[in-house]
Amino acid sequence: MQFHLVRKDKKTRARAAILKTDHGAIKTPVFMPVGTQGAVKALSPRDLRDIRAQIILGNTYHLYLRPGAEVVRRAGGLGQFNGWHKPILTDSGGFQIFSLNDLNRVTADGFEFRSHLDGSQHFFSPEKVVDIQRALGSDIMMVLDECVSFPAEFNQVRKSVRRTVDWARRSMSEFHQRPAQHDYSQTLFAIVQGGIYRDLRRECASELVNMEFEGYAIGGLSVGEPKEAMFDVTETVTELLPADKPRYLMGVGKPDDLLEAVERGIDMFDCIIPTRNGRNGQAFTADGPMNIKNVKNKDSAEPLDNECDCYTCTHFTRAYLRHLYVAKELLILKLLSLHNLYFYMSLMERTRKAILQNRFAEFKKQFLARYNGDQI
Amino acid sequence: MQFHLVRKDKKTRARAAILKTDHGAIKTPVFMPVGTQGAVKALSPRDLRDIRAQIILGNTYHLYLRPGAEVVRRAGGLGQFNGWHKPILTDSGGFQIFSLNDLNRVTADGFEFRSHLDGSQHFFSPEKVVDIQRALGSDIMMVLDECVSFPAEFNQVRKSVRRTVDWARRSMSEFHQRPAQHDYSQTLFAIVQGGIYRDLRRECASELVNMEFEGYAIGGLSVGEPKEAMFDVTETVTELLPADKPRYLMGVGKPDDLLEAVERGIDMFDCIIPTRNGRNGQAFTADGPMNIKNVKNKDSAEPLDNECDCYTCTHFTRAYLRHLYVAKELLILKLLSLHNLYFYMSLMERTRKAILQNRFAEFKKQFLARYNGDQI
Repeated sequence: MQFHLVRKDKKTRARAAILKTDHGAIKTPVFMPVGTQGAVKALSPRDLRDIRAQIILGNTYHLYLRPGAEVVRRAGGLGQFNGWHKPILTDSGGFQIFSLNDLNRVTADGFEFRSHLDGSQHFFSPEKVVDIQRALGSDIMMVLDECVSFPAEFNQVRKSVRRTVDWARRSMSEFHQRPAQHDYSQTLFAIVQGGIYRDLRRECASELVNMEFEGYAIGGLSVGEPKEAMFDVTETVTELLPADKPRYLMGVGKPDDLLEAVERGIDMFDCIIPTRNGRNGQAFTADGPMNIKNVKNKDSAEPLDNECDCYTCTHFTRAYLRHLYVAKELLILKLLSLHNLYFYMSLMERTRKAILQNRFAEFKKQFLARYNGDQI
Repeated sequence: MQFHLVRKDKKTRARAAILKTDHGAIKTPVFMPVGTQGAVKALSPRDLRDIRAQIILGNTYHLYLRPGAEVVRRAGGLGQFNGWHKPILTDSGGFQIFSLNDLNRVTADGFEFRSHLDGSQHFFSPEKVVDIQRALGSDIMMVLDECVSFPAEFNQVRKSVRRTVDWARRSMSEFHQRPAQHDYSQTLFAIVQGGIYRDLRRECASELVNMEFEGYAIGGLSVGEPKEAMFDVTETVTELLPADKPRYLMGVGKPDDLLEAVERGIDMFDCIIPTRNGRNGQAFTADGPMNIKNVKNKDSAEPLDNECDCYTCTHFTRAYLRHLYVAKELLILKLLSLHNLYFYMSLMERTRKAILQNRFAEFKKQFLARYNGDQI
């Protein structure tokens, strides 16, 4: 993997870069649609190409449980399996074990957990999670980390940071010892933990940076902490991360959150909000989010967003989309997911362009004013 | 509407024709995907074009209840509303009132029924159903008819035939009095009822033929009667229908049923089987139906159907489709619906070609032998 910084904004920490993988180059800042079980919900690879997605996510925890890493490996890796031949990043499963399982036990060795599907018992060590991702064949693999819930005591968070650092070292070692199982190269990113404690975040970031990973993620945010804390931590961490490596803020967020994080030096994002909220009838527009179910849309001949040129906005009225939603027609799940993801894609493209033209701060201000409905 | 008979098969009653509407020409025999609420489940108009659908169905009963005929009329008609700019046929709702409602009462005037959505009370007369379809703006409208369940006594069926004939006359009169509400022309088809009683079918068909409708449907079949009875009735009716008008067998059926009915002179079909069975994991193939969930598909690198060139078959393996189905991923609903409908479209295209080449009987024999797994 290669990472080229193309431009740093003069007024802020925002940056535009290119991340090269064997499955193609990714222009950053980038938003990565989430395909937990190998598919982005309700969308086909063709839909994803139409909205100019550059890279999608898969999840190690889910794919390990179903269909199993061996099925994916035998198919030639996740991209051969699911028909998405561009880059793929797999999350390690640490967050999923933390959020989907009551019955997990964490030891120095790893996680003991029960499947959320059938209650069967499993064990994830940092090494095993690297091995699974070698089999899945994602372009970017993530180390196993330990999330803590919010709020959490300093000492508890400190313990999880020590474990996360130790596991990152073991993951790196396994990564170098375990050869690739597919005919393209993979890379491994570390994950900075530390809750809302800046000192712990700094400690975690510094130690991981010393291990010289090819990329760094910030994990354990957007789990209930105040937004201010989230952005403070983001800034604290990006200040310590090397400028020549990609930075990924995991699980964030809403359109305005993305701009705040880009301003603080983040390059990569993933979040289920555009697809999940879409399935619940919420559409993102330049004028803020709107609920398609609203009765004022009943006879509206307008598209969701007048400035959007996605398939949904160029082919369907709000009246029809509202009908599909109220009538529980399956097609609405695709049409709103597609539009929302396109809104995110387009937002990141315009953000990149603004950075390249040294006008990010202005772009952000204008976008947010309109998005939040402020009088300018 | 114009109907041109292009070729009649020499050995059978099978025929190839062209049906011209203001929204385009339809080559028959044709299968019409069902879009009850205005959308074919899980498919977009673009998907429908990809599978070469020529005409889709909508349902008067459903669209009247939701979003309401006025909403559709104000949008410019159903095709403007749902983004499908090719021909549309709307069923009258007679069958839906019969099948979805316990609390209906039928009088000489029409149906009193309760909405299956909220229990509210409504009344459909033959005239009202024409008016609603004028507002919906379908290219082909269907008269209100009365279905009876199977089995039913001769006298009960006779009564429903008398009512259906009377209602057809009233529908025709309303059709000529009520002007079109959109800037294209619409046509009205009659529906032949009569259960499995050939005499009643003959009586119904003769009287409707005397009224000179532009097309004739056969209704009230595939409701539990033996297949033999279904094909006997089909043959009995098509013998009486004029050769220069299209014939539509409503709600039928499986791939083999379509070929049997084409042999008996049917031009048009609709059925929910390809989409509903697709959503339940069943895929139609040249070698017969198969269940994608079958464990033998777990690692299969084969497409659903080796000879199929639909999007699903050219992009995904059985292993991946099985995974999507088992993991309850929304995308599978689209991928199997798309493939199954394409299988039906392609079957009708090949059937037409065989008729044009005077080899329909041979084509049917070969298709069925392979489809049913017979040793030839």
